[in-house]
Amino acid sequence: MRRTLAALALPFLALAGVPAAAADRDDRKRKQTITHRQDQSSTAGSPDTFTGEVRIDTLFAADATAPYSGAYVTFQPRARSAWHTHPAGQRLVVTEGVGRTRQWGGPLREIRAGDVVWCPPGVKHWHGAAPDSVMTHMALTGVRDGQAVTWLEQVPDEQYDGRILDEVVRDR
Amino acid sequence: MRRTLAALALPFLALAGVPAAAADRDDRKRKQTITHRQDQSSTAGSPDTFTGEVRIDTLFAADATAPYSGAYVTFQPRARSAWHTHPAGQRLVVTEGVGRTRQWGGPLREIRAGDVVWCPPGVKHWHGAAPDSVMTHMALTGVRDGQAVTWLEQVPDEQYDGRILDEVVRDR
Repeated sequence: MRRTLAALALPFLALAGVPAAAADRDDRKRKQTITHRQDQSSTAGSPDTFTGEVRIDTLFAADATAPYSGAYVTFQPRARSAWHTHPAGQRLVVTEGVGRTRQWGGPLREIRAGDVVWCPPGVKHWHGAAPDSVMTHMALTGVRDGQAVTWLEQVPDEQYDGRILDEVVRDR
Repeated sequence: MRRTLAALALPFLALAGVPAAAADRDDRKRKQTITHRQDQSSTAGSPDTFTGEVRIDTLFAADATAPYSGAYVTFQPRARSAWHTHPAGQRLVVTEGVGRTRQWGGPLREIRAGDVVWCPPGVKHWHGAAPDSVMTHMALTGVRDGQAVTWLEQVPDEQYDGRILDEVVRDR
């Protein structure tokens, strides 16, 4: 509804020399805004960057005042992200279930509802659900120069299961 | 455990000219860290800044790389914050129940699980539970110059119930 009104207003605002986007930004500087769940996007994780069934429920976008985005990400059992890095880091708050995460060359680590994970800038890692549990985390992702994530190669089963050292996979 | 080790290591690190805090910061730059719920603080909201029963469960502190803190805040029915402003804004993700919020001079607005609230820098407002429901939100609070919030006067019942205009209270 908000978007529709902004679109309708655009020609008039443009005539008056005030772009609608700028007016909307200005509004966000002065007023509390409430976004309801039904107005948020819910999308499937792309097979380019995830293995298995993953759902991303957007909460908020990054902006200049608070340059980090927020989304719930839900992984079905064994689903996981590809390896990736974040230029400005990422915080994960696990809200449901049991999952696992691994930093390149490090041990496989279990994460559970209530855990908070800090992924520093530039550190290569992945995260996903445990083999026998769904896992949901809120992902709070910093943005630097318009960039939030650099996607790398997928995590094959033998890495997900911890049956092989990361270095061995890399050197194949 | 982590803190204990850091404390034990302090004399040696100090002798070597590397303060433990700096070593810990350095560690956080290179390694994924996981904080478990049982190692987090859970405190009651102070009667100086809240009315009614409020619990604050810390998730993470702000730091230089990601300058916003995170905490769950749970309000029992009718509990609410005092009026306040945030120098760098605040995002609220309502995770449980029904609550209400009000910007100074604005209407009383209902918030529900799934809603996301953006409170811009410097905007005077309060938030709390509905009269007949608990409300929990995750509060993501920006920090500017070491400051996250400026507390103002309490919210009396007549304001909480919307029985009086904010301006009337101010002018009394």
